[in-house]
Amino acid sequence: MYQFSESGDVVGPVDGQVVPRYAGPPTFARLPRIDQVANFDVAILGVPFDTGTTYRPGARFGPQAIRAGSRLLRRYHPHMDSEPFHDQQVVDAGDVSCNPFDLMGAMDEVDRAATELIESGQRLVTLGGDHTIALPLLRAMERQHGPVALVHFDAHLDTWDSYFGSSLTHGTPFRRASEEGLFVPGHSMHIGIRGPVSARQDLVDDAAMGFSIVGTWETEEIGVKGLIEKIRDRVNGYAVYLSIDIDVLDPAFAPGTGTPEIGGFSTRELASIIRGLSGLPVVGLDVVEVSPAYDHAEITALAAANLAYDVVSLMAAETDPGS
Amino acid sequence: MYQFSESGDVVGPVDGQVVPRYAGPPTFARLPRIDQVANFDVAILGVPFDTGTTYRPGARFGPQAIRAGSRLLRRYHPHMDSEPFHDQQVVDAGDVSCNPFDLMGAMDEVDRAATELIESGQRLVTLGGDHTIALPLLRAMERQHGPVALVHFDAHLDTWDSYFGSSLTHGTPFRRASEEGLFVPGHSMHIGIRGPVSARQDLVDDAAMGFSIVGTWETEEIGVKGLIEKIRDRVNGYAVYLSIDIDVLDPAFAPGTGTPEIGGFSTRELASIIRGLSGLPVVGLDVVEVSPAYDHAEITALAAANLAYDVVSLMAAETDPGS
Amino acid sequence: MYQFSESGDVVGPVDGQVVPRYAGPPTFARLPRIDQVANFDVAILGVPFDTGTTYRPGARFGPQAIRAGSRLLRRYHPHMDSEPFHDQQVVDAGDVSCNPFDLMGAMDEVDRAATELIESGQRLVTLGGDHTIALPLLRAMERQHGPVALVHFDAHLDTWDSYFGSSLTHGTPFRRASEEGLFVPGHSMHIGIRGPVSARQDLVDDAAMGFSIVGTWETEEIGVKGLIEKIRDRVNGYAVYLSIDIDVLDPAFAPGTGTPEIGGFSTRELASIIRGLSGLPVVGLDVVEVSPAYDHAEITALAAANLAYDVVSLMAAETDPGS
Amino acid sequence: MYQFSESGDVVGPVDGQVVPRYAGPPTFARLPRIDQVANFDVAILGVPFDTGTTYRPGARFGPQAIRAGSRLLRRYHPHMDSEPFHDQQVVDAGDVSCNPFDLMGAMDEVDRAATELIESGQRLVTLGGDHTIALPLLRAMERQHGPVALVHFDAHLDTWDSYFGSSLTHGTPFRRASEEGLFVPGHSMHIGIRGPVSARQDLVDDAAMGFSIVGTWETEEIGVKGLIEKIRDRVNGYAVYLSIDIDVLDPAFAPGTGTPEIGGFSTRELASIIRGLSGLPVVGLDVVEVSPAYDHAEITALAAANLAYDVVSLMAAETDPGS
Amino acid sequence: MYQFSESGDVVGPVDGQVVPRYAGPPTFARLPRIDQVANFDVAILGVPFDTGTTYRPGARFGPQAIRAGSRLLRRYHPHMDSEPFHDQQVVDAGDVSCNPFDLMGAMDEVDRAATELIESGQRLVTLGGDHTIALPLLRAMERQHGPVALVHFDAHLDTWDSYFGSSLTHGTPFRRASEEGLFVPGHSMHIGIRGPVSARQDLVDDAAMGFSIVGTWETEEIGVKGLIEKIRDRVNGYAVYLSIDIDVLDPAFAPGTGTPEIGGFSTRELASIIRGLSGLPVVGLDVVEVSPAYDHAEITALAAANLAYDVVSLMAAETDPGS
Amino acid sequence: MYQFSESGDVVGPVDGQVVPRYAGPPTFARLPRIDQVANFDVAILGVPFDTGTTYRPGARFGPQAIRAGSRLLRRYHPHMDSEPFHDQQVVDAGDVSCNPFDLMGAMDEVDRAATELIESGQRLVTLGGDHTIALPLLRAMERQHGPVALVHFDAHLDTWDSYFGSSLTHGTPFRRASEEGLFVPGHSMHIGIRGPVSARQDLVDDAAMGFSIVGTWETEEIGVKGLIEKIRDRVNGYAVYLSIDIDVLDPAFAPGTGTPEIGGFSTRELASIIRGLSGLPVVGLDVVEVSPAYDHAEITALAAANLAYDVVSLMAAETDPGS
Repeated sequence: MYQFSESGDVVGPVDGQVVPRYAGPPTFARLPRIDQVANFDVAILGVPFDTGTTYRPGARFGPQAIRAGSRLLRRYHPHMDSEPFHDQQVVDAGDVSCNPFDLMGAMDEVDRAATELIESGQRLVTLGGDHTIALPLLRAMERQHGPVALVHFDAHLDTWDSYFGSSLTHGTPFRRASEEGLFVPGHSMHIGIRGPVSARQDLVDDAAMGFSIVGTWETEEIGVKGLIEKIRDRVNGYAVYLSIDIDVLDPAFAPGTGTPEIGGFSTRELASIIRGLSGLPVVGLDVVEVSPAYDHAEITALAAANLAYDVVSLMAAETDPGS
Repeated sequence: MYQFSESGDVVGPVDGQVVPRYAGPPTFARLPRIDQVANFDVAILGVPFDTGTTYRPGARFGPQAIRAGSRLLRRYHPHMDSEPFHDQQVVDAGDVSCNPFDLMGAMDEVDRAATELIESGQRLVTLGGDHTIALPLLRAMERQHGPVALVHFDAHLDTWDSYFGSSLTHGTPFRRASEEGLFVPGHSMHIGIRGPVSARQDLVDDAAMGFSIVGTWETEEIGVKGLIEKIRDRVNGYAVYLSIDIDVLDPAFAPGTGTPEIGGFSTRELASIIRGLSGLPVVGLDVVEVSPAYDHAEITALAAANLAYDVVSLMAAETDPGS
Repeated sequence: MYQFSESGDVVGPVDGQVVPRYAGPPTFARLPRIDQVANFDVAILGVPFDTGTTYRPGARFGPQAIRAGSRLLRRYHPHMDSEPFHDQQVVDAGDVSCNPFDLMGAMDEVDRAATELIESGQRLVTLGGDHTIALPLLRAMERQHGPVALVHFDAHLDTWDSYFGSSLTHGTPFRRASEEGLFVPGHSMHIGIRGPVSARQDLVDDAAMGFSIVGTWETEEIGVKGLIEKIRDRVNGYAVYLSIDIDVLDPAFAPGTGTPEIGGFSTRELASIIRGLSGLPVVGLDVVEVSPAYDHAEITALAAANLAYDVVSLMAAETDPGS
Repeated sequence: MYQFSESGDVVGPVDGQVVPRYAGPPTFARLPRIDQVANFDVAILGVPFDTGTTYRPGARFGPQAIRAGSRLLRRYHPHMDSEPFHDQQVVDAGDVSCNPFDLMGAMDEVDRAATELIESGQRLVTLGGDHTIALPLLRAMERQHGPVALVHFDAHLDTWDSYFGSSLTHGTPFRRASEEGLFVPGHSMHIGIRGPVSARQDLVDDAAMGFSIVGTWETEEIGVKGLIEKIRDRVNGYAVYLSIDIDVLDPAFAPGTGTPEIGGFSTRELASIIRGLSGLPVVGLDVVEVSPAYDHAEITALAAANLAYDVVSLMAAETDPGS
Repeated sequence: MYQFSESGDVVGPVDGQVVPRYAGPPTFARLPRIDQVANFDVAILGVPFDTGTTYRPGARFGPQAIRAGSRLLRRYHPHMDSEPFHDQQVVDAGDVSCNPFDLMGAMDEVDRAATELIESGQRLVTLGGDHTIALPLLRAMERQHGPVALVHFDAHLDTWDSYFGSSLTHGTPFRRASEEGLFVPGHSMHIGIRGPVSARQDLVDDAAMGFSIVGTWETEEIGVKGLIEKIRDRVNGYAVYLSIDIDVLDPAFAPGTGTPEIGGFSTRELASIIRGLSGLPVVGLDVVEVSPAYDHAEITALAAANLAYDVVSLMAAETDPGS
Repeated sequence: MYQFSESGDVVGPVDGQVVPRYAGPPTFARLPRIDQVANFDVAILGVPFDTGTTYRPGARFGPQAIRAGSRLLRRYHPHMDSEPFHDQQVVDAGDVSCNPFDLMGAMDEVDRAATELIESGQRLVTLGGDHTIALPLLRAMERQHGPVALVHFDAHLDTWDSYFGSSLTHGTPFRRASEEGLFVPGHSMHIGIRGPVSARQDLVDDAAMGFSIVGTWETEEIGVKGLIEKIRDRVNGYAVYLSIDIDVLDPAFAPGTGTPEIGGFSTRELASIIRGLSGLPVVGLDVVEVSPAYDHAEITALAAANLAYDVVSLMAAETDPGS
């Protein structure tokens, strides 16, 4: 039922000519489960958790929606000329079981799960869940790789200090991570920022933490190529962690999210930007804030699944398969 | 713009012949706000809070949805021969501002808001929010009225002990309330219970706390009249607190909720039961678990709004207008 | 492509074994258009008009939705043992082209269209459109048949006097018709009434106009058979005009309507009541207030289409085919 | 992570206190996969197939939707006083991989998969898919158990001869099965039949094949208890195969289906009927025609999942756990 | 609960750190009501009216939807470096109560309400309602400011003469306004025009009335900057009235509208254009044709709310706060 | 009721000033039926068929949805300065009645219907249905015109060899057509290709069949004008057949389709490309894969209808009206 790589070392997704795409295992891209193979290069991990949400909740149903939206993913990526599920061993590691009533405890559960999956240098792709989970993921990354360069796609900065007295919400992970020294100073950035914020000071604070900001409206001025250039210049060879809040897309392209903001990227723009990062050493990715109750025709889940596929393709270029 | 009672003492809703029902103030039933009248008999209070939810979240948007669903409510209730908004002064008291990141703190905020509203013997109708909020509401009730007889409409018992280590969730309020002595022993009950539970022991525990259980399937056997009889027998003249989890309705009638359970009441059955409680001393009501992201055509919100209207009508029969 | 009756005189719907039901002509039940046959017994007429609406508009899209919802109607009605489209010639007469900016003018257009269709004693089934259109339809009926007995299925009385100064809205047609003497005194009725009204006086006024009222809650007491009995007693042999506001159904069964009211009939109850009227001289029907933008999965349109089918079956029992 | 039976022999669903219900494995009711246990008593099998559909397609997405809808199923069934997933070993056997372009070939695939799963006397619960699949399932049943008594819940007879020249569609399985002698003569029946059919002869033919018919409207006359009595009388001790077309429910309760028919059962009625069959030797079940694209808030999938749970509970009463 | 400006003179929106954004007052952006402050610079006015609609109705529910969609608006506008709700006093003036059965009378009601709000030079932001309301708004503007330069964003010209005999519909306001001399000759324009029209002559007539036309397809040629240039050139320093028919956006970005037209602007393009008008003397804005029954996930309402926010920011640059 | 051309020779659509657009005949653009005029230049043909679908089915409901979505089409196309329904006689030819259970037979039915409609040189616009139908349409075209240059808009190549053993599915028509010699060698192309494919070899095979490929991401590089240039260069004066799979649009613009792929064209881009083909000898068009159950607010159907309108406008430039 599974497709294999030429060498036979890599177990790929279930073959679409043997099992129709609307049937078969509900793993991401119909990949093998982590317990079905001996080793892996990239793990896909679900984090069904949304206790950090401040407006529309529901991202706890994100992982299963993204997996459903990944059923149409196929073997070969023409735009990147790669076979991301055959050039390296990718597996679905299931879900972290997070406690919805203990935000701090849940973060530790995510940290532990991530740490275990990457302890031999594997890459990690996390399907959220709300953006709070980026903090424990970055902690795990830092322990394995040292400080990373963050490339953060989002409508919002997520570097606020607290909300209703809580220092940990989906609006604060990158301030906390910054305070904990999880980033290489001066090489992290936010892309896709737009919409009103609480105060002018938010931008000042954010800059003081060492982030640069690129707004979506710059697309009209410098084009997708210019945006790619900005990212490549910024990360400058450091290990890169990608964090994609799906609300970086316009609500037309991603209605199924919790704090939608008009004026976002189209999926074509965002996928083009990500594909333009080829060659960068991407150590991890999270795709977060997919809230299926607000989606329709699965388009948000489909976008999240395809963006994850693009990043797995980026990872493939860096990986020695079967290691 | 507002309608007045015959005596002129009571300020009723905005007149539907002056302001179209799709226009005008978004208070419950287009009633005056609490700051627009000097005294009131019944307060409508929103509690936009869903941190206690275990499955589909979203009840934080319940109060605004129920208010929108209440726009069609009119002056005279033919089935009960009353004018619930003119026989007594009813006001919209706005929302409690609950902290979504501090479950215990939020419960105190609800308690304080409720306590203040009922301190001169007023009735309280609360629009949830998830069912966790019943606990602070019952605390406030008990302080004002002493222990009450609970008539609890729900698909679920909500007398579980804890969930993921949290002793306070939307599945536990009535165990906590029972432990705190907020009920008259032997005069409280659950109605509409159905669907699988965690263990046979759940029923034993529930009975030990002094509740009786009526399942929806009994409707076929004893009819709505029999159900009314059971309730009236049970509460036996004590001050009654009504708690309506909207999932007591079948998902066909209330799709917009978090833990739907097939085999529920129809709205006609439930409204008939409530109307059959006429004459009972109802001191408070909560209508909870309306989760608008799962609703369609506003039917769940409409049901919640109308059930609240029916209970306000029950209260009217007990009230000296304008007091 | 069309099915014919045994005699060959009657042209029935397009054959479902020749043209799939999701294909072919979009006439009601895939019947022939009025211009395709020489004579007819029953005409189906669309009135896409909703200028009389007071809350959610959209019934202007009702006729096309009901026609789409009628594609599954088949030849034989087992419950009534009839072939309603073969025992008599039924045709789709298309839509009346009503002026949306001239309520009075539009009513005249409906009157003219109806008058023309029934001038040789044919039956008329009208697909609304909002309930305002019942007035011109009753005018046309009265001119052909004299005063009729109205059997009016609705959550609302629709005998109010005016709304925002307009004497003609979807809430007033039966007061106007009563004033114009279009009903046999003492033999008309409303069934399915429920929900709050503007004033106790509304009921007094309604009774003074000669209507009796049956609420949906009586179903629990006297059952569907009792309801049928009440109708048959009331109309007492007079020519019957049926008017079905789809909101007589509960919002669970008919979400796609403009002024939904909880506690309504189920489709099974309503269809059983209508089938129980067999033998009554039904001269016309309107099915109104289907507002597709609020429907889902076509269930409201499907209900409207099937109820019309049941009434056409009632008409078949009375009709000499091909006349 | 999994719950175990008292004896420890039976592996139950994932524990809801360890893994939140919106997380964890997407098997039916979060049960173990067939490859995770040594033996089983009941297998849950998905058949994502809808090539036999004549109106709205989409039931190919039924199995995954029903599994998603089964996440709220809990351990203990109070109404039947059983623990259906602990009194017997139940497993999720995954999906049959049916060829969507070869109706006959697909049927053989279903037959083979079913045959293998029941070869040691196990029970089978099949999640469709369209109703065509009942034929190969009945073939497999007959080979194991001999002819069975069919209890068929449906709005439609499904004993038509052919459609567009195809002898095998979702409207013909029971005629084919009857011709092949898969039923005990005179002990099979249809329940829930309603709506128009192609011809009076359809009923004559159906009776000639040895079926009896019960319409939903009989509920008003004989009640749920009367309906249960009719079934028990009819099957008379023979091995029973249950086939539930979800359109036996009213579209209000099950909008997500392909050929909806008004006037159906409520979920409460249908669940009560099924629970009333306790003690009958049920050898298999299929729940078919769930078409998720037409569902909302998962209510159709939820109904299908719960009805399957009820039937698994029926099976539990008959089973020696762990055998 | 409210935020105040530095000086304390201006009462801003309810503080999002005190009251969660899904809670609290349902005014636009959670601003104070007009009766809560002594003076104001900008009034937000709802006009729930859609009697002028020619296709999909429902814009009568627009104002409440846009207000709900405005809950995420925050204090600081980074793109324009302004605090639009603190640099000037903005208030929610509630809804005009328009008569739905008297188009001409309703227009007078809008005129009166607008006139009163701007009589001391205040700016006005109107939330529709259908586009008919632009006529009375322009009348009020002209009386206060003299003829204005109209910058009209729309897929349609709205300079038709009449529809079904009515000289006032949502397709005619700008012809009427032109006839009444409400515009500065030669300085008004339509932007975003596309899609088929009734006749070539429509364009000739429109030009004769003194309008120029910019189609959305010009974006590919001259870019957003070119479009901004065209507008600034055209209005040339005159007092500007902005009218945004939400259908100027593509249906992907604004499905919730009455006469959708493919090929529209994205929200990013439209917001960029509006922000590019900084420094122009904008005296008023209407945002119209939001029809929530066709919206999903609130994306159309969100777009309307954010565009209004951008225009209020334009106004802030022109205003002396607290005046 | 119908509009006529200046000469009176051509019968145009029903006049929108006489019959409101939400009323009247449900033909495409409210055009006359084929039986209502003597001759025609362009026929609009529905093919409600989706048996060739591999993922989400439902395109069988495409033709009726596209016709509903075409109600807003008006007389004059400003961008192309044409009156496509008056410069030539366009008619609605109804639906082909395809057998859903016989893929090969159905293809013959399409071929026969198409052949008959174009036998005197008429143009054909086909509304699908799934993409399988392009094969019989191309066969009919080739018989009339000889090999054609295919301009194929799609996210997918549709030149696969087989799926589940079937050589004819919606993923294979252009390989079959190529094998049958229906294309001019070297002058056909795919535009809008994106997303993963099964293997690198797919691209090699496709090129070997003589197709060139243009991806949507090239839009950023060469703009719409560059894309137009590429097409005009490629087809080089040969008779052009256009095939538009609606999934060439991004899911934001066309959610109602079966195999959505992110990163597609916007409607503005696609319409601009098509309008840029003015002057090319377009002999036929199919617009396929509209699956209404996944659409919302009709936006996909609206896009399909408008794109067909644009192509009919292209045809008008080539046609001698009334011939």
